[in-house]
Amino acid sequence: MSSAMMQWSMDAIGRDRLGLHSVERPVPGPGQVLVRTRAVSLNYRDKMMIETGMGIDLSFPFVPASDLVGTVVASGTGAERFAVGDRVITHFSPHWREGWPSGSAAQPPYNSLGGVYPGVLSEYVCFDQEWFVQASATLDDAQASTLSCAGLTAWFALFELGRVKPGQRVLVHGTGGVALFGLQLAKAAGAEVFVVSGSDDKLARAMALGAAHGVNRKTQDWVQEVHRLTADAGVDHILETVGGDHLGRSVEALALRGAIYLIGVLEGFTVSSPAAALSLKMATISGVSVGHRRALEDLVTAVDRLGLKPVIDRCFAFDELPQALDHLNQGPFGKIVIELAKDWTSA
Amino acid sequence: MSSAMMQWSMDAIGRDRLGLHSVERPVPGPGQVLVRTRAVSLNYRDKMMIETGMGIDLSFPFVPASDLVGTVVASGTGAERFAVGDRVITHFSPHWREGWPSGSAAQPPYNSLGGVYPGVLSEYVCFDQEWFVQASATLDDAQASTLSCAGLTAWFALFELGRVKPGQRVLVHGTGGVALFGLQLAKAAGAEVFVVSGSDDKLARAMALGAAHGVNRKTQDWVQEVHRLTADAGVDHILETVGGDHLGRSVEALALRGAIYLIGVLEGFTVSSPAAALSLKMATISGVSVGHRRALEDLVTAVDRLGLKPVIDRCFAFDELPQALDHLNQGPFGKIVIELAKDWTSA
Amino acid sequence: MSSAMMQWSMDAIGRDRLGLHSVERPVPGPGQVLVRTRAVSLNYRDKMMIETGMGIDLSFPFVPASDLVGTVVASGTGAERFAVGDRVITHFSPHWREGWPSGSAAQPPYNSLGGVYPGVLSEYVCFDQEWFVQASATLDDAQASTLSCAGLTAWFALFELGRVKPGQRVLVHGTGGVALFGLQLAKAAGAEVFVVSGSDDKLARAMALGAAHGVNRKTQDWVQEVHRLTADAGVDHILETVGGDHLGRSVEALALRGAIYLIGVLEGFTVSSPAAALSLKMATISGVSVGHRRALEDLVTAVDRLGLKPVIDRCFAFDELPQALDHLNQGPFGKIVIELAKDWTSA
Amino acid sequence: MSSAMMQWSMDAIGRDRLGLHSVERPVPGPGQVLVRTRAVSLNYRDKMMIETGMGIDLSFPFVPASDLVGTVVASGTGAERFAVGDRVITHFSPHWREGWPSGSAAQPPYNSLGGVYPGVLSEYVCFDQEWFVQASATLDDAQASTLSCAGLTAWFALFELGRVKPGQRVLVHGTGGVALFGLQLAKAAGAEVFVVSGSDDKLARAMALGAAHGVNRKTQDWVQEVHRLTADAGVDHILETVGGDHLGRSVEALALRGAIYLIGVLEGFTVSSPAAALSLKMATISGVSVGHRRALEDLVTAVDRLGLKPVIDRCFAFDELPQALDHLNQGPFGKIVIELAKDWTSA
Repeated sequence: MSSAMMQWSMDAIGRDRLGLHSVERPVPGPGQVLVRTRAVSLNYRDKMMIETGMGIDLSFPFVPASDLVGTVVASGTGAERFAVGDRVITHFSPHWREGWPSGSAAQPPYNSLGGVYPGVLSEYVCFDQEWFVQASATLDDAQASTLSCAGLTAWFALFELGRVKPGQRVLVHGTGGVALFGLQLAKAAGAEVFVVSGSDDKLARAMALGAAHGVNRKTQDWVQEVHRLTADAGVDHILETVGGDHLGRSVEALALRGAIYLIGVLEGFTVSSPAAALSLKMATISGVSVGHRRALEDLVTAVDRLGLKPVIDRCFAFDELPQALDHLNQGPFGKIVIELAKDWTSA
Repeated sequence: MSSAMMQWSMDAIGRDRLGLHSVERPVPGPGQVLVRTRAVSLNYRDKMMIETGMGIDLSFPFVPASDLVGTVVASGTGAERFAVGDRVITHFSPHWREGWPSGSAAQPPYNSLGGVYPGVLSEYVCFDQEWFVQASATLDDAQASTLSCAGLTAWFALFELGRVKPGQRVLVHGTGGVALFGLQLAKAAGAEVFVVSGSDDKLARAMALGAAHGVNRKTQDWVQEVHRLTADAGVDHILETVGGDHLGRSVEALALRGAIYLIGVLEGFTVSSPAAALSLKMATISGVSVGHRRALEDLVTAVDRLGLKPVIDRCFAFDELPQALDHLNQGPFGKIVIELAKDWTSA
Repeated sequence: MSSAMMQWSMDAIGRDRLGLHSVERPVPGPGQVLVRTRAVSLNYRDKMMIETGMGIDLSFPFVPASDLVGTVVASGTGAERFAVGDRVITHFSPHWREGWPSGSAAQPPYNSLGGVYPGVLSEYVCFDQEWFVQASATLDDAQASTLSCAGLTAWFALFELGRVKPGQRVLVHGTGGVALFGLQLAKAAGAEVFVVSGSDDKLARAMALGAAHGVNRKTQDWVQEVHRLTADAGVDHILETVGGDHLGRSVEALALRGAIYLIGVLEGFTVSSPAAALSLKMATISGVSVGHRRALEDLVTAVDRLGLKPVIDRCFAFDELPQALDHLNQGPFGKIVIELAKDWTSA
Repeated sequence: MSSAMMQWSMDAIGRDRLGLHSVERPVPGPGQVLVRTRAVSLNYRDKMMIETGMGIDLSFPFVPASDLVGTVVASGTGAERFAVGDRVITHFSPHWREGWPSGSAAQPPYNSLGGVYPGVLSEYVCFDQEWFVQASATLDDAQASTLSCAGLTAWFALFELGRVKPGQRVLVHGTGGVALFGLQLAKAAGAEVFVVSGSDDKLARAMALGAAHGVNRKTQDWVQEVHRLTADAGVDHILETVGGDHLGRSVEALALRGAIYLIGVLEGFTVSSPAAALSLKMATISGVSVGHRRALEDLVTAVDRLGLKPVIDRCFAFDELPQALDHLNQGPFGKIVIELAKDWTSA
């Protein structure tokens, strides 16, 4: 094992400051584990972080991305949570183990890997052992890497904040990573799933994944179509990933006493809704910011027991990060993943 | 007992169409009770209904108002829920007994007394026995009449939708009926209560009722003051009765994982909030539209056991309805009530 | 339509007092509907009621059984909840619509059809329209009749009292009606289901219905086997239908923070458990007594959307009631149903 | 500061093996804090541990007791959770921070201080910083020490497992530490509190603390008296600290849909109840084993904001431990506390 490794990092904000560099391979300190990266799943938020910094006070060199699957190759003193050889995934919000997040109301925290904390686009990462959980035993590397952020967000909304019951109706917007996890998980919980998309082709693929209804928002007024399909009853749960005044349209599509999960609209934009519909429906809107570690462990367990397979749009090689980031803009169907060849460093 | 009675009604929408008329006293049909009115509590919504109709397809002559306390004077066949002589109050949403409201997502219902259903500004009312609950035994008539709408709204938000625990922080806006019930009920549940108002005098009176902190929104940035008073922790529950982009300010003042109850902003206005704060705080916004009958029964029980006394701003006589409606505009401190003299008809 | 009908009734407690008699067909009063019976599902409790009266102050002639599917053939004045021709099922606890049941702590109520209220083993029944809900559109008559009691009990335990999530473990005892509904509903919600039975044949049939694990309690210590199968983690939810000190064994098999639903052990027997395991596991034991009407409507909806088919052990003709009751003792696999021929009366 | 300190410890199970010894004062390792003890609150369970070992595989010398308030006097490397001088209390279950406890279903864990983990009857303790929370600012030392176990148990039952609302009825058995915290906290949450005791004198003192009703179980059938006092409605929440078939009596006293919290009956005894009452009332029995750290922090906050003062039965000096243990048997009214003189070591 050489003592160097390759790592994507930036010395300032901006796509043009992103480069692949050889750096010293870290050595695990007390309580830490050294993990050899096998795959990294990208989120749209990674692209925003690279291009804008998202208002966070980053330290440079900055390594982007948060979702990793890898193999434990060494442990520091007192680090007994994992054995060498264990396959692990990262937890997005490393200090939030369970229950309630805590922090300032004046400056609510966005304490995630690849943000306030270091990122994972590196051949090895060396973090506190508490920042990892066991990877799913039934998924390959690319699939396993997708649970940390997109998978957990959908799970946390539907089963920690929400309480989806068999026979209820769940609606997802688009076919990105969170939406497709929402589709698959809601279907596994016995729900009737509605997908709204601008592409008939994607709708057909969503139906093949188990959606009961596909609504093309370009050829139909999607809210009216939801009313029609449900005989005016509306849908019980909506994963709202669009934001702005689209929130108000989701409120219109919602059933009485329904719930909307407002996910990751982190551009600082404003969301809005008609007040009367919110009150008269006694609707609930819950902000979602990924989820806690125990829920991630529950998700891994559920995925293994259900045999659920996350949807991968496309895999890229470690040195194809720029192409992968470009692809994020093109409305993928599922997740985009960077896979590391087993002998990448020696290349 | 003569067979006539006096009743406020309108033959069309508009303050100028409101008049006090002598009409036939109704006779209870199967399952109905005839109730002699003792007091009627007014809500701002009654004024809106009179002046605008609020978009509801009213039938005329229309009798306004929803919150009544009275005495059962006769029962129809099969009406055994109450005995003659029982003192009862109306339930705002007469068909919603418990659990979830139901209805159309396309046209969410606003099925209340003094709206879709008949109102109560009448010497006698004759409704289905299921539309009433036993009045509080520890309150006088004016006080007892205030639980049906303002009291139940605050109770339903804090204890059915929310789960206020001792030591948590609850914030109310202003000193209207819902806000003062929120103050008193949250205090009774062991919460630390914040009141935001534009009047130092009203803040002093709110403190006397048990509020821990009063914030003058005219002389301070109320959100910053809440941050300061809570060492940036924010407040756990907010009764949001203002609407518009004020919702966003409430989100700013909210603690992580806090809850906002959006109450009765029924003008069709839009509410808005920064998306990032909602997501990062994992805040919940719940629309509130009064509450179900079992909760009203719970509230009556709680008021009696706690010895809680609703705050009455001012009482008016039955023929002073116009003055009472005018007074609703003047920022009352608590509820405005119409009291009926015991021998009013004979006057 | 003749004005007579056949009806099973008793003039005193005891199997030998049960007879099939011709009686006057009722005429619906205000708010009532007349329903022509298509099928009646039997519960073990019906047999106990016939043989022991279960301590209830019955009025005679007493008609047993509670679970009916039939067709509305006439409506009384004001009965607009259903149209003539609608297929409906009975609700077991006719006055419990939603939320909390109410009643005396000193003498908790057992207010069900075929008990305090009249039963349904009759060619026609005439009840308040509120005692029925729409039958499932996707089930045949025998299947549709099984939701009222066995189906609702399992549903209410798992999804109203409990909160089964995908990937959790659910255990059912035996293969009676409630247990098999529990199996099918938990499976539909994404759970991993364990079945405990004394018959390998029944276990094989339960696996075919979707159970992940079958444990033969005659050839194994079922608790130890559950520990082994779960690597000592235990199961998250148990439908406990045995009672006595078997409850304590279920507590042993339970995961930390797990839930046991204690169902219908109505013989007045005592249940017991080791106290230490209950406390240290922070386990919850919830008594279940069927469920409310809104949950029955939710179950019907879920069954239709999931395509779930209740398991029928055997159907009997209307005049074979004695044989059907005998069959209840023989450890059926699923439900026992009485089906009425379309022209039975004329026979 | 000398390097020795006094400590109560045992070299084997049994009261006669308990002695006060001079030992080396520990030095905080990485992540640890050294805390100078100010007071230690005793629980009945400490006495059982000393006399029986409670089936736990203890390591000797064994230091008993779990509930400490003290001052941080030194911190190890990386221990930044507290500053020197901070006043802190111990958390009973040191690894349970929030959410669900985890562990084996076959051998449910009892991982507490003064048991599996070291105890606190020592002039100084040296533990991981995560095992402490900030002490209440409004309580003196003796009072502050009582929150860790008795206070948290009552809080966790009523506000984490349960959901006490204003106006509900809460019943506590006896006047021990958990019962009196239950009384005070339930009262602070707006509940109507019932106390059952065998002493009129203690009942009078409980009424003075805010109980609405005292029932003498020696002169009355307490269940019938509860039925009478509640007009047969029963009580909504019961802290059950007796166990055995007393659980069944609590079920009889319970309201429909009520909740019993089964607390700390750790002798391995069996609890039992009539099955029919449990099912028909749809009652819930929840095992309680103290609580998690976030709830302890919430309790400290609530105590400070409410101005609640825990009830101390009697304080003893550090060298009076034997007398204090004897006093535990004598039905104290509130907590028994060992207070350390400021200069005890030098004595």
